[in-house]
Amino acid sequence: MRSEEITSAVTTAPDGSEYRLPSTDEIETDFAEIARAASNWRAKGGTVVVVQGLGFVGAAVAAVVAGARNGNGDPLHYVIGADLNAPASYWKVAKIRSGVAPMAGPDPELARLTHDAVHVTRNLTATASESAYSLADVILVDIHLDARMDGDVGLDVDLDAFAAALRSVGRQMRGDALVLLETTVPPGTSETVVLPILRQERLRRGIEEPLLLAHCYERVMPGPKYVDSIRRMWRTFSGIDTASSQRTSAFLSTIIDTESHPLWELDNPTSSELAKVLENSYRALNIAFIHEWTLLAEQIGVDLFEVVDSIRVRTGTHDNMRYPGLGVGGYCLTKDSLLAQWGASELLGSDIALEKTIDAVKTNAMMPLHTVDVIRELLDGDIAGKRIAVCGAAYLADVADTRFSPSETLVGALESSGASIRVHDPCVIVWPERPDLAVTPRLPAALAGADAVVFAVPHSEYRRLSAADIHECVGGSSTLVDANNVVSDGTAEALHASGWRVAGVGKGHWRREGYPRRRQ
Amino acid sequence: MRSEEITSAVTTAPDGSEYRLPSTDEIETDFAEIARAASNWRAKGGTVVVVQGLGFVGAAVAAVVAGARNGNGDPLHYVIGADLNAPASYWKVAKIRSGVAPMAGPDPELARLTHDAVHVTRNLTATASESAYSLADVILVDIHLDARMDGDVGLDVDLDAFAAALRSVGRQMRGDALVLLETTVPPGTSETVVLPILRQERLRRGIEEPLLLAHCYERVMPGPKYVDSIRRMWRTFSGIDTASSQRTSAFLSTIIDTESHPLWELDNPTSSELAKVLENSYRALNIAFIHEWTLLAEQIGVDLFEVVDSIRVRTGTHDNMRYPGLGVGGYCLTKDSLLAQWGASELLGSDIALEKTIDAVKTNAMMPLHTVDVIRELLDGDIAGKRIAVCGAAYLADVADTRFSPSETLVGALESSGASIRVHDPCVIVWPERPDLAVTPRLPAALAGADAVVFAVPHSEYRRLSAADIHECVGGSSTLVDANNVVSDGTAEALHASGWRVAGVGKGHWRREGYPRRRQ
Repeated sequence: MRSEEITSAVTTAPDGSEYRLPSTDEIETDFAEIARAASNWRAKGGTVVVVQGLGFVGAAVAAVVAGARNGNGDPLHYVIGADLNAPASYWKVAKIRSGVAPMAGPDPELARLTHDAVHVTRNLTATASESAYSLADVILVDIHLDARMDGDVGLDVDLDAFAAALRSVGRQMRGDALVLLETTVPPGTSETVVLPILRQERLRRGIEEPLLLAHCYERVMPGPKYVDSIRRMWRTFSGIDTASSQRTSAFLSTIIDTESHPLWELDNPTSSELAKVLENSYRALNIAFIHEWTLLAEQIGVDLFEVVDSIRVRTGTHDNMRYPGLGVGGYCLTKDSLLAQWGASELLGSDIALEKTIDAVKTNAMMPLHTVDVIRELLDGDIAGKRIAVCGAAYLADVADTRFSPSETLVGALESSGASIRVHDPCVIVWPERPDLAVTPRLPAALAGADAVVFAVPHSEYRRLSAADIHECVGGSSTLVDANNVVSDGTAEALHASGWRVAGVGKGHWRREGYPRRRQ
Repeated sequence: MRSEEITSAVTTAPDGSEYRLPSTDEIETDFAEIARAASNWRAKGGTVVVVQGLGFVGAAVAAVVAGARNGNGDPLHYVIGADLNAPASYWKVAKIRSGVAPMAGPDPELARLTHDAVHVTRNLTATASESAYSLADVILVDIHLDARMDGDVGLDVDLDAFAAALRSVGRQMRGDALVLLETTVPPGTSETVVLPILRQERLRRGIEEPLLLAHCYERVMPGPKYVDSIRRMWRTFSGIDTASSQRTSAFLSTIIDTESHPLWELDNPTSSELAKVLENSYRALNIAFIHEWTLLAEQIGVDLFEVVDSIRVRTGTHDNMRYPGLGVGGYCLTKDSLLAQWGASELLGSDIALEKTIDAVKTNAMMPLHTVDVIRELLDGDIAGKRIAVCGAAYLADVADTRFSPSETLVGALESSGASIRVHDPCVIVWPERPDLAVTPRLPAALAGADAVVFAVPHSEYRRLSAADIHECVGGSSTLVDANNVVSDGTAEALHASGWRVAGVGKGHWRREGYPRRRQ
């Protein structure tokens, strides 16, 4: 029944496990079973929720929705995760079907929720069938929408894939289903992009009842509180009309602890879309701001960490001041400002230039190059031919998420300068963005004989290392650059005493005290 | 004994009261009495504290230091306020000598402290005699140090007056006195400016014992918690050496509630100086950031206040996001970033440009011009000849402080466009920066017949006004521009219904709902 071509296609998860891509027939056979289960669920008064897109957000949201309970402790929703039958996506469907959270993480609650929903309460499954949307009372949209700086030409936001995904929802959705956009989108997207697409597809199918649509952004944070970043986190939303807002509020109340985190309804979806990108632009800006003070502190011999700590005691006004570091990564802070500007200009016809906002994103993108400068200075101006151990590939401490990691920029720049790189990361087995670069599993092997060791990410494993540990791993004295406040003053001093050159981003006092060669 | 010239010189306080400037003989007679009192105080084991500079900070600090008590409830310090015998300064000396706080404010505690210290415990006085510094165990430096943008040429910081004041301290101070700089100064000032001046003057006098010097910045906030902003506020400091830090810590512990607000000692005075200007630059930046989102929100019909409120629920990371407004005023946020850049370049030899930091100050300085644009648009493009009532001249709600108030920029720009201005402010009797412009004491008189009413400052009196109040004051329908979130949506709607044109900074929803003419 299946062609050779299809049977040979596989999909590989970041943990290395492989799955065969199913045939169309297999997908439809599975779907028939899912449809029966959904129908039974609905017959008993439950709702059917389809989550479109099973990435870092969607896969976790699906598990949390499946974990929602009524007063008697019974599951409220039958949840179907939907993603594409493609090598880059299907492994997520396969993982969920086997009861495993696709994105491994330090929060055991996510693994438990996923396992129990699939194997115990049996109200969570996944599929690559577009027909899934036809079963839904609620469709949660958690697909990607990427943006990037397009050289000098401007911003590039590719709405095509996003629009195509929404069109597939429109082709299938029930007339009375609620579509909830959780994706961070350019302001104006709900009303000027999604609404027309869904209306058009529905009209084509003769559906004339009013569309139920809302924007309702997530604040999911992979890490030790992955599940709580959904359940016990503030939610802002807005429907396109009162009926949409009411349905949204009722649904969100079943999955979010609204007693501790009451819902915030805004006036219109554009406001909600703006809130999300403003929120992340604000963080991005404050990171960019501290970077210029970092450069100053290094030059004038000031420990900027100590200074920021002293200011952050002012809770409520100054306690979120950022610290020096390698740079900014992850899926949100690197692109949401671009979405803001693009939506304002392209969807809403504004002529306002969000100059400071865009400038911050540019600064943050270039931040890792400062660490390259520090490395070059410590290596007497020459990186070419040097063996450099980069410790940390993830974008955050103690997580495996490498999306838009500043280490990627760092490593690329070091390679361009002719360095030979070894990468270590205690959480990352395969580096999806750099599959050509093997992640060395053990730290001693990664550090042995390095001309320079760079701590790029403050993983707990690195923070526990003593000067003796580091010295022993390398097998002698070398050069250390701490790009993310990993190493204590005491460790730096001890290494210096053992003949190391040491410098740290934001640690001007290390220069002052002579650990590294002084600036010319 | 006195020349005619001297007897005719007067000094005028902002409340209108006048004082004659004293003759040199009078000053020295007074000083002899102060010296006797100080000597008696010291003989009983107390310390003598001289506060140099009796502005918004110094006058309040003097009262708080005089209010410090030991375990038995007895005053610890004899406090002498020192300022110049000049028309712009001497009224502060005169006020304190009469037991009155020079800067009237809404905190009754300041008035009480000042009165009681002068009249009851008799441990607070003031003088224009430089000899006062010779009496001190501790000298608190609270004099001004101004900075401004000097066109395209760059930054202008005039250290001359500051250096002269420190030189007078050096000429008089005891060898073992502690000099505490509370003034916000360019980073590097303590070690590269103050230290050499004091050392030189002391050596000239044959004093060879080590100088005791520290930077210890204040966070004084005029307003209802004026006294608490000294007593119950975090203090960061650093001495030039261990002995200086220890003396500073011991002294500060007598005036600050260190149980609730433990002292923060930094490694060196440059770090402390940097902390202060970074702290204020951070606020200035976040105000500038929200301004470009304000312009966007107005264009796309979003209520940015609602959006910011929804984001600020994220305590610890986002709860200090700023709101739209008229602009930035006061003595700190308008200049501290300039001090930062100047100190880095001129005193510490850094080549780092604090671009985002300086850009923010420039944006903030121009912010009030956006309100002018909104006014112009509502008046159909023409401000010339219009009678405009500006409500609010202070830089902060419910205080009289007008230093660097954004209303000054607003009024200046409106005048340049040919408007005729009436100013009202419930807290300001005389506007020191605009003595030519009378402040109309009663609101109805200020508003009567105005072509436009501008709410510039969210004084409580304005926030209590109903639509009917405003309409009645003006005597008919007119134009309202709310530059600082003074008026509620309901009031705006009611005015609109009465034929008013209404717009508000950051209130895009008012445009959307058609209160004002829409943008072309």
